[in-house]
Amino acid sequence: MSKPDWIAVDWGTSHLRVYAMSGGSVLDERASDDGMGSLERNQFEGALLALVSDWLGDRTPVLACGMVGARQGWVEAPYSSVPAAVDQVKMVNAPTSDARLDVRVLPGVKQVQPADVMRGEETQIAGFLALNKGWDGVICLPGTHSKWVLVSANEIVSFQTFMTGELFALLSEQSVLRHTVTTANWDESAFSEALSDSMARPEKLAAKLFSIRAESLVNGTAAEVGRARLSGLLIGAELAAARPYWLGQKVAVIGAPEVARLYVAALAEQGVPATHVQGDRMTIAGLNAARLREGISA
Amino acid sequence: MSKPDWIAVDWGTSHLRVYAMSGGSVLDERASDDGMGSLERNQFEGALLALVSDWLGDRTPVLACGMVGARQGWVEAPYSSVPAAVDQVKMVNAPTSDARLDVRVLPGVKQVQPADVMRGEETQIAGFLALNKGWDGVICLPGTHSKWVLVSANEIVSFQTFMTGELFALLSEQSVLRHTVTTANWDESAFSEALSDSMARPEKLAAKLFSIRAESLVNGTAAEVGRARLSGLLIGAELAAARPYWLGQKVAVIGAPEVARLYVAALAEQGVPATHVQGDRMTIAGLNAARLREGISA
Repeated sequence: MSKPDWIAVDWGTSHLRVYAMSGGSVLDERASDDGMGSLERNQFEGALLALVSDWLGDRTPVLACGMVGARQGWVEAPYSSVPAAVDQVKMVNAPTSDARLDVRVLPGVKQVQPADVMRGEETQIAGFLALNKGWDGVICLPGTHSKWVLVSANEIVSFQTFMTGELFALLSEQSVLRHTVTTANWDESAFSEALSDSMARPEKLAAKLFSIRAESLVNGTAAEVGRARLSGLLIGAELAAARPYWLGQKVAVIGAPEVARLYVAALAEQGVPATHVQGDRMTIAGLNAARLREGISA
Repeated sequence: MSKPDWIAVDWGTSHLRVYAMSGGSVLDERASDDGMGSLERNQFEGALLALVSDWLGDRTPVLACGMVGARQGWVEAPYSSVPAAVDQVKMVNAPTSDARLDVRVLPGVKQVQPADVMRGEETQIAGFLALNKGWDGVICLPGTHSKWVLVSANEIVSFQTFMTGELFALLSEQSVLRHTVTTANWDESAFSEALSDSMARPEKLAAKLFSIRAESLVNGTAAEVGRARLSGLLIGAELAAARPYWLGQKVAVIGAPEVARLYVAALAEQGVPATHVQGDRMTIAGLNAARLREGISA
């Protein structure tokens, strides 16, 4: 492989993903568990070099988004505020000792009322809008902290975050439900039923959650039913609360295919057309758009 | 201290509590972290002896309730089914090698539709009814898995479990919110406001949870506000879903004072009179009532 022109970096709380880039094309990609959450400030450069050292030329531009720009990250990239134009972002240089590295960190976006924040999703949105010029509508980014984002005229207008993915992880791995949902299998009809039930009566969530355990003890319900029901209850509660975002709207779902398809299907059942695009590709497109705009090259 | 007549045991998932008894009076009490969740079947006797060995006479009756009677416990005490008369419980003898021990385990209660289970709370309810003859109404037992129980004519008629306490523990200790709610302090007005808000719009829970983190990042909201708000949101969601239980009813709250007072105050605001009784005292009263009924003595 020839040396990349630049390196795209998606640096979240728990993962670090790097892409060797030639213009807008990915030459190679690597990942590690050196997420921002496990690093001290002086460890970021080393964690990056561990993955990209052999990709570097004399001086290689690196563009990074995500929690790497948080206050506890490599360098703080202060939030932009809504309404935030996705094509006007103020990058911050990260301090480095290796002269081959030229690292810039993209800021996140904040909203004061109701209070909310994002870091990384704004870059995926910028990538989506770079690839879909003039698109207006609602973008859903399911994940650890799912986001619903209203986009208009190339701006992030407003957004809301739900802890759906983190709740699923905590409940399925660390709560009393872990005994009941541990399986790689999945019961699609249990998911659909729980989703509808939860959308219709979201206020029953805390009771419905325990019923997954009780159903297993009392009626011997299978783990794949429990797991799908847990997912359906949580996503259903999110969709119920996010109704003002998606009702009567055009929706794009940006995320990993396994989870994105659940959202697309659920929205379709509500009569809402939703398209799915890959999250990692949007991150790369967003970083590349920022690079081109700033005229950054090796 | 003279040797006790009998020993009362409250054996949950994470704790073991033992009481040296003389009739209905507590002579001494001890506790350890040898909960059912951390013990293999052959370790229960040793865990008990570690606490009570010096209390034992030639042969001392021990009455135990809680998760000790689960399938993974010392000996399975099969569930009674609702409607379950609290004064007819079928105790199961636990196998012992120390001849000084005469151990009996009380069963839990199950409900098939909607599926639900309890182990330990039925004994607290039996204790409450032994001390309050002829009481009809609704009993709320806040905790890791909060229960709402309809009681009539000395029977447990129906009940529903909420994962409120476990959600609070997971979210405050292990989620992204842990950075934002770590404090021993408490803002009472933030609790009240979040409680009202959550009762009025329980479907917003998953979004409101993340807002605790965002409020801290964006507006610098204090940890005691975040902690009280987290509690208010979760208890509010529980109260909203449990409305069919408490609306227009007389309620008794059985539990530890710190959490019970929150429920009593919240119910009072809804115009529902609620009294509070201590959970551990009700456990002892329930075990003693079972002992007297069966004529068990040293």
